Amino acid sequence: MGDGLVYFEDLEIGTKASFGHYAVTRDEVIEFATKYDPQPFHLDDDAAALTHFGRLSASGWHTCAMVMRMLVDNMTTRKQAGLGSPGLDELRWLKPVYPGDVLRIETELLSKKRSQSRPEMGSMQSIVRVFNQDDVMVMSMHSIGLIQVRNP
Amino acid sequence: MGDGLVYFEDLEIGTKASFGHYAVTRDEVIEFATKYDPQPFHLDDDAAALTHFGRLSASGWHTCAMVMRMLVDNMTTRKQAGLGSPGLDELRWLKPVYPGDVLRIETELLSKKRSQSRPEMGSMQSIVRVFNQDDVMVMSMHSIGLIQVRNP
Repeated sequence: MGDGLVYFEDLEIGTKASFGHYAVTRDEVIEFATKYDPQPFHLDDDAAALTHFGRLSASGWHTCAMVMRMLVDNMTTRKQAGLGSPGLDELRWLKPVYPGDVLRIETELLSKKRSQSRPEMGSMQSIVRVFNQDDVMVMSMHSIGLIQVRNP
Repeated sequence: MGDGLVYFEDLEIGTKASFGHYAVTRDEVIEFATKYDPQPFHLDDDAAALTHFGRLSASGWHTCAMVMRMLVDNMTTRKQAGLGSPGLDELRWLKPVYPGDVLRIETELLSKKRSQSRPEMGSMQSIVRVFNQDDVMVMSMHSIGLIQVRNP
């Protein structure tokens, strides 16, 4: 099938990728937090100064959302026969993300597995590491993706 | 310390809570997906009809964001001496979340642990289960929270 898509059979364990450039703005941090995570240290400099964050920082869920945007933008450069994600493991918010930060991603394919019950699909486990402009890792997670098998 | 806050010592393993009422709208699903997860099945009915989602569904990260909003709103009803979260484990998107759904949460405190290195704080592990209006579980995760010790 010469459709140019990446299928389960094409995945090579150990494959690494490095991509993404997301500039975190103060307006976006406050907008996201106002809607979804209105804790004072995500909304207000003075409140944040009283915490270990030190200053206004992004909601961890906002960081996840920004990471997802970089992952989706990268998918379009090399399209996978993806079937969505059932979830993830070991998500860690390691360091605060601040307005002014620029985020990027490194991924590594850890393993893949054919489905026992559904021969037309498989799963893949990747580690996603998120860094800021100082190459400090701010977040990591083990993501799980489902992908079509080319020849079931 | 009669500050009314819930501290590490006050946490009782097995405590359950049930709260939240989040009405998922089509506009919000599309707005979130446009910014953070612009995959066709989160943006467009026709594209979604071609997938196992069947129709336009919310980004899993949007569901997380809506869940966080319910968690934060609930925190203000019984305030904890919280210190943020280092992350979570075993996040699972079990069923699609659709515009028109109304989400609610059930939580249970599974365990708590004093920090070895920082006597002034402890961690707590909870399971968070998210249900729709038909009492179908659409998401679950093991969350980790940090909390102050009243008497270190």
